[in-house]
Amino acid sequence: MLPSFKKRHPPVGARPGTLVTAESAVPPKIRVLRYDRETIEDLGSPEPEALPGLVQPGTVTWIDVQGLGNESLLRVIAKGFSIHALALEDVVNVPQRPKFEEYPSHLLAIARMMRTTPEQLVVPEQVSLFLGKDYVLSFQERYGDTFDPVRVRLAEGIGPIRESGADYLTYALLDAIIDGYYPVLDQVGERMNQLELRIMERPTPRNLDRLNELKFAVMILHRGIAPEREALTRLLRDKSGFLRDEVMVYLRDTMDHAVQLTDALDTTRELAASLLNTYLSLLSNRTNDVMKVLTIMASIFIPLTFMAGLYGMNFERMPELHSPWGYPVLLAVMAVTAGILLLYFRWKGWLGSDDDDE
Amino acid sequence: MLPSFKKRHPPVGARPGTLVTAESAVPPKIRVLRYDRETIEDLGSPEPEALPGLVQPGTVTWIDVQGLGNESLLRVIAKGFSIHALALEDVVNVPQRPKFEEYPSHLLAIARMMRTTPEQLVVPEQVSLFLGKDYVLSFQERYGDTFDPVRVRLAEGIGPIRESGADYLTYALLDAIIDGYYPVLDQVGERMNQLELRIMERPTPRNLDRLNELKFAVMILHRGIAPEREALTRLLRDKSGFLRDEVMVYLRDTMDHAVQLTDALDTTRELAASLLNTYLSLLSNRTNDVMKVLTIMASIFIPLTFMAGLYGMNFERMPELHSPWGYPVLLAVMAVTAGILLLYFRWKGWLGSDDDDE
Amino acid sequence: MLPSFKKRHPPVGARPGTLVTAESAVPPKIRVLRYDRETIEDLGSPEPEALPGLVQPGTVTWIDVQGLGNESLLRVIAKGFSIHALALEDVVNVPQRPKFEEYPSHLLAIARMMRTTPEQLVVPEQVSLFLGKDYVLSFQERYGDTFDPVRVRLAEGIGPIRESGADYLTYALLDAIIDGYYPVLDQVGERMNQLELRIMERPTPRNLDRLNELKFAVMILHRGIAPEREALTRLLRDKSGFLRDEVMVYLRDTMDHAVQLTDALDTTRELAASLLNTYLSLLSNRTNDVMKVLTIMASIFIPLTFMAGLYGMNFERMPELHSPWGYPVLLAVMAVTAGILLLYFRWKGWLGSDDDDE
Amino acid sequence: MLPSFKKRHPPVGARPGTLVTAESAVPPKIRVLRYDRETIEDLGSPEPEALPGLVQPGTVTWIDVQGLGNESLLRVIAKGFSIHALALEDVVNVPQRPKFEEYPSHLLAIARMMRTTPEQLVVPEQVSLFLGKDYVLSFQERYGDTFDPVRVRLAEGIGPIRESGADYLTYALLDAIIDGYYPVLDQVGERMNQLELRIMERPTPRNLDRLNELKFAVMILHRGIAPEREALTRLLRDKSGFLRDEVMVYLRDTMDHAVQLTDALDTTRELAASLLNTYLSLLSNRTNDVMKVLTIMASIFIPLTFMAGLYGMNFERMPELHSPWGYPVLLAVMAVTAGILLLYFRWKGWLGSDDDDE
Amino acid sequence: MLPSFKKRHPPVGARPGTLVTAESAVPPKIRVLRYDRETIEDLGSPEPEALPGLVQPGTVTWIDVQGLGNESLLRVIAKGFSIHALALEDVVNVPQRPKFEEYPSHLLAIARMMRTTPEQLVVPEQVSLFLGKDYVLSFQERYGDTFDPVRVRLAEGIGPIRESGADYLTYALLDAIIDGYYPVLDQVGERMNQLELRIMERPTPRNLDRLNELKFAVMILHRGIAPEREALTRLLRDKSGFLRDEVMVYLRDTMDHAVQLTDALDTTRELAASLLNTYLSLLSNRTNDVMKVLTIMASIFIPLTFMAGLYGMNFERMPELHSPWGYPVLLAVMAVTAGILLLYFRWKGWLGSDDDDE
Repeated sequence: MLPSFKKRHPPVGARPGTLVTAESAVPPKIRVLRYDRETIEDLGSPEPEALPGLVQPGTVTWIDVQGLGNESLLRVIAKGFSIHALALEDVVNVPQRPKFEEYPSHLLAIARMMRTTPEQLVVPEQVSLFLGKDYVLSFQERYGDTFDPVRVRLAEGIGPIRESGADYLTYALLDAIIDGYYPVLDQVGERMNQLELRIMERPTPRNLDRLNELKFAVMILHRGIAPEREALTRLLRDKSGFLRDEVMVYLRDTMDHAVQLTDALDTTRELAASLLNTYLSLLSNRTNDVMKVLTIMASIFIPLTFMAGLYGMNFERMPELHSPWGYPVLLAVMAVTAGILLLYFRWKGWLGSDDDDE
Repeated sequence: MLPSFKKRHPPVGARPGTLVTAESAVPPKIRVLRYDRETIEDLGSPEPEALPGLVQPGTVTWIDVQGLGNESLLRVIAKGFSIHALALEDVVNVPQRPKFEEYPSHLLAIARMMRTTPEQLVVPEQVSLFLGKDYVLSFQERYGDTFDPVRVRLAEGIGPIRESGADYLTYALLDAIIDGYYPVLDQVGERMNQLELRIMERPTPRNLDRLNELKFAVMILHRGIAPEREALTRLLRDKSGFLRDEVMVYLRDTMDHAVQLTDALDTTRELAASLLNTYLSLLSNRTNDVMKVLTIMASIFIPLTFMAGLYGMNFERMPELHSPWGYPVLLAVMAVTAGILLLYFRWKGWLGSDDDDE
Repeated sequence: MLPSFKKRHPPVGARPGTLVTAESAVPPKIRVLRYDRETIEDLGSPEPEALPGLVQPGTVTWIDVQGLGNESLLRVIAKGFSIHALALEDVVNVPQRPKFEEYPSHLLAIARMMRTTPEQLVVPEQVSLFLGKDYVLSFQERYGDTFDPVRVRLAEGIGPIRESGADYLTYALLDAIIDGYYPVLDQVGERMNQLELRIMERPTPRNLDRLNELKFAVMILHRGIAPEREALTRLLRDKSGFLRDEVMVYLRDTMDHAVQLTDALDTTRELAASLLNTYLSLLSNRTNDVMKVLTIMASIFIPLTFMAGLYGMNFERMPELHSPWGYPVLLAVMAVTAGILLLYFRWKGWLGSDDDDE
Repeated sequence: MLPSFKKRHPPVGARPGTLVTAESAVPPKIRVLRYDRETIEDLGSPEPEALPGLVQPGTVTWIDVQGLGNESLLRVIAKGFSIHALALEDVVNVPQRPKFEEYPSHLLAIARMMRTTPEQLVVPEQVSLFLGKDYVLSFQERYGDTFDPVRVRLAEGIGPIRESGADYLTYALLDAIIDGYYPVLDQVGERMNQLELRIMERPTPRNLDRLNELKFAVMILHRGIAPEREALTRLLRDKSGFLRDEVMVYLRDTMDHAVQLTDALDTTRELAASLLNTYLSLLSNRTNDVMKVLTIMASIFIPLTFMAGLYGMNFERMPELHSPWGYPVLLAVMAVTAGILLLYFRWKGWLGSDDDDE
Repeated sequence: MLPSFKKRHPPVGARPGTLVTAESAVPPKIRVLRYDRETIEDLGSPEPEALPGLVQPGTVTWIDVQGLGNESLLRVIAKGFSIHALALEDVVNVPQRPKFEEYPSHLLAIARMMRTTPEQLVVPEQVSLFLGKDYVLSFQERYGDTFDPVRVRLAEGIGPIRESGADYLTYALLDAIIDGYYPVLDQVGERMNQLELRIMERPTPRNLDRLNELKFAVMILHRGIAPEREALTRLLRDKSGFLRDEVMVYLRDTMDHAVQLTDALDTTRELAASLLNTYLSLLSNRTNDVMKVLTIMASIFIPLTFMAGLYGMNFERMPELHSPWGYPVLLAVMAVTAGILLLYFRWKGWLGSDDDDE
């Protein structure tokens, strides 16, 4: 069955900035990291009111909020960092289209993270990043994320991440999000290959259903990465005061990844289309196969049965019936008839299977 | 059956500004609200001639006209607010493509509202908004609208709506119109899911018809929202003297919603295309199923019937007929033949159903 | 059968400006109207040499030439109004793509008028308008046109037509041409609806042919209106010295109509595509229906016939034949077999029709 | 069988300017014409070294080279007119994409001429024109061309061709090339119409093959004219120092022809797509027809044969066999059974043909 | 089976510049050539640390690195030529999208080389070229390349290659890469033609699989050349300080080749689509053929068998059985019936094959 594509949206005519908390939203957990070139501190989970006070010039503070299930808490944070009502709406009323939006005191980046779970091939999750002076404020829909490698790099001080500012951290997070598409895409590709074998073996409606699910997964990935690519293109062209030129070079690289991903998704799409053609033509071939068996059986035995019926008639005067050679001759005629028909079908190429050709 | 797509249009060669009142047009009802930060007055249904006089600097007057079935009344209103003949034609000769048009004394916004009714999945209705200095003049085709939540917000003074000018009211109305697409789209999505189950169970022409109706509903929604998005893009780029920058920020949000809606509609379209493929392949599978039953029955019994026919012949010299073992041996041969054929069909995978695979 | 799409064109390598008079071209009829705010004169059919002399400053002269079947006469007119050889070629070598071209002494507008005739659903006809100072010179391929309502408006002085200049007349004529698409499109829509009912009833090749004809008609309409829309877009953007700004406002309205028409044509196209899917799936359903009848009949009677054949054999020792209960027991077995098969087919859902589902 | 689309290309890594003479290339024939307003001289076939010396200011010299099968001769000519190595490569390594390229001493125009031959529907041939000061140098792949009408116009001095310069000659040649598409397209259209009749009569694989050939021919034409149109658009926009404004007006006309041709090709393509649908649905209809005959024959006779088999059984106690009315009553029952089945099939609409509906 | 489309990519969240050495990566081999107008030296395989020292003003040094399987060695080279971490990532983490990127000290060109191997139709390999002052540094994934003809031209001093700078060498290498597409494309074309014959003979699933493989090969080629074309367009428009104008003229030629290749690939794609249609319609035709044989056999013999069954009945009173003419008359009736049916089928056109029509 195809997944639903419902979107959470405020009631019609609601005032702008209305937050629609999903029933499944989990209560927010806050985690704060502050670092500079030399030191890194895990500030734990402070009260939301205290967050703005943690930001110190010369260091970078990363406030990570996981879970959107507490409206008043979110409003407190938003107030502390002077986040516009519409921007907060974008954070909470997921999913929003990936984009960059510049506000006076920060740059908002909306992106879509992808995961696979045992139940569902592709699970999108929205990540919203606010890049301000000396801080990054990230919001995620659920607990658990793909940012752990970034935390490790921060903790171990690998690469330039500790020496660069909040804009580099923003880049690192965006890059982690986009790199997260690759394993999902690999998973999709592997399933596509398995499915191809299955379809080759048996073109069942269940397999068509699976193909539709894969196409849908590709579509979800595409809806996540294509607007990201657009947004990055625009950002690279228009520049932003919150991103230094050194970081722009790195974002150009992220952009390259996004382009590669859309290319790979296009390839996957064409594979799915080929697979559909294969599926439909295998169906036709199977019908053909069934027909051929029926035709061969019926065409051979129907004339023979007619001959048998002929000599089962009760006419008084049927000279053949009385000849001692009647029966063996008829059997011979039947054998020859069957043989000729078999040769005809062999010549038509209906006796072998269609699956192999030399 | 597919809905008709007839458009009301003036006779060929008619002078520009000719109004074509639909037979189904209802007589106009006027309702006027006037408010400022402190007060809000319901001015009821004044005479059309009196309307321009109600507009007062420092307050916002919202004149809502529901029903377009009285040409002379509309001309009176148009004259009072110096509406151009072509603009009035756009109001009355529905449906027009959504657009913004700037005139010296007002900005005209044409939009398309969507509703579902028990009889029809998607019913479009045109709304025309004239935003002038201190007033908004709205025209709707039919009674009843999706503006009630806006009226409630006005009455209760929730949010910035009472503190902002006529341009904010225009935004609020446009936003309500566009938010009104979501429930209709949800409805379409739900029907799509139901239809999928139905098609899976039975691919009948009636279900194909239903699929076509859904595709048509998606098309109607798309024809409403896509030009709206275009128009908003142009408006946001070119700016208008009637809209302050603060309101522009809100319209950017409305624009985001329009983009999301077109994305969702694209998704729905692809789902419909997948469903069509499913439908067609299920049809093929069913034919295949029917063929298999026929082939199995015919292939098993035709050879047996031939054998029976053989020994029903009346030749004088058929030694088998006189052997006491003739009959039981033949029955055994028949059973073995049937068994071999059954094994062959089992090996071909024709005996199980195609619907399940492990 | 699909209509031919041959175009009249000069022999290869002919000098530019060569006129290719179609064999079916009718001899030109000239009709001249001259009017100003107060008066309107019908100047009848003057000699072609006298035409330029009829143009008077302060009045508008409309010279309408119907029929292109006299090359020398056309050359005389062209010379009188200093029409470039290539422009005259555009007038005569129909059909040309709709366009606007500015020449030193006039603006050339090429447009395509559409009519329905009893024989053919859509008949395009080229109209060429030369808008010069104080005159409009129009050329049509055949007698009879859609300009009569414009003539009536001129005669009765309705609307601003008599008070405005030659550019307004040009607009009025263009608008009449484009409004002329609506009734043709309505006709196409009505036929589409009829065809849908017919296809639902019986998916015959004749109906597919009809569908192709409708698609072709839509294509002809599209080939007329889409370049017109392009040309108008360009004209509205680049402006022309022959068209005052007041008239530009009206042309923007004409442009809106052209956009609506292309939208409606897109809708019609999608309807046609849906109809094709319906057609093809109905064909599959019918094959399925036929197969089911065959399968049911064959599957029930083939085993019964086998049983009958069995007891028609002439073996000496067949104990059943001698039992007095043999015959009635066999009949009962046959009835039970048939009943079981019928139940099986009922369970498969093959006994009811596929056309109705509750 | 589909035509090959091989392109002649130099070995990988060859130095630029490598000429790849096709084995089928014919030895070049040179023909020189020199004219001014009063006189025209046929200078025959001078030695290649002498060619540059023939160009005289105040006259136009047209050097036409037919056949590319002599590399050293071509290099001599190229040297005489200072043609760049890459430009000569473009001339010889056919086919090149149509384009205009400006070099210091001349403008290079590459175009593709189309012919039909008895063996092949569309034969493309590359024509390269070098327009320099006072001369035009044209290269063609094969003998015989579509330039004869231009030669006649030159000889007879018809139109402005003798009075205008080398740029006008270039235009005249390009125009002749593009006009040469029309008869080929007419030919394609005629074949399409014939093919439609054939397919209507009999949807054979051979006819599908013919349809593919026509689609391929349309594709070849499109590959010739579409880049020509692009190139002309760019030339008209960017201007060239070798083409005076008077000639530009004529090239705009040529451009119009190119646009019309692409329109006509699009129409042809859509016709081909319609034809493919017709073809496939006719195939389905034919299968349906075959099925119906089988079903009717089998469904009528299988029950009758069963009845006959029933009374062919040899049970001792079958009372019907002994009744004198047994045989006639059974015959009557058979007739009624057959009649009922026939009525059922008639009601199903399977007895008439599907080809006609009233 | 369709090839996998997996891409090598760093673990999610890895720091930028992480190199992902494929397991299949081979250890790098270095080969250095240095030349000027007079001399050319093969400098063999120096240590990576020594490479920057080999570059001498006035000569061109070409350092060719084949194999990417040694990260530390690559880092040494990158350091020597001050290659940015992201640029080195682009070199190693293949495949990257073809592009040009300008860095302060060099221009990076990423391109994709294509080869055919006996096992695989199209094998892409990434080539990265760094064009600096007086040197070209090229990286290839595997040993063996298509650059040998360039080495020969260098060694033999053919053409301008020895007299021009490092930028001309870069052009020559890019040109060799792009020219390398032609033989692969030819190979694809040849297989397409073979496949067409095979499909015409027998539309088996194996052949559909082959068609999908060809489509996939075309897609791989397209993914290589289309971004190359884009990148070249941008380079030709924006210019680069590392490429002199003389070389730009040559790159324009390379660009022309890229455009021709994409054209040819589009053609191949359309051929593949035609072939798929042919395939599917041949499948339908074959089913039709099978059906016709079944229908003819069954329809002729079923009525005859019925007649035989009729006179096999054991009614006591069947006068025909006792007539001496009964048997021969019945035989005659049977012959006539069969003849009529045969004539009917002949008239229906079912007796001949569908493959030939006159």
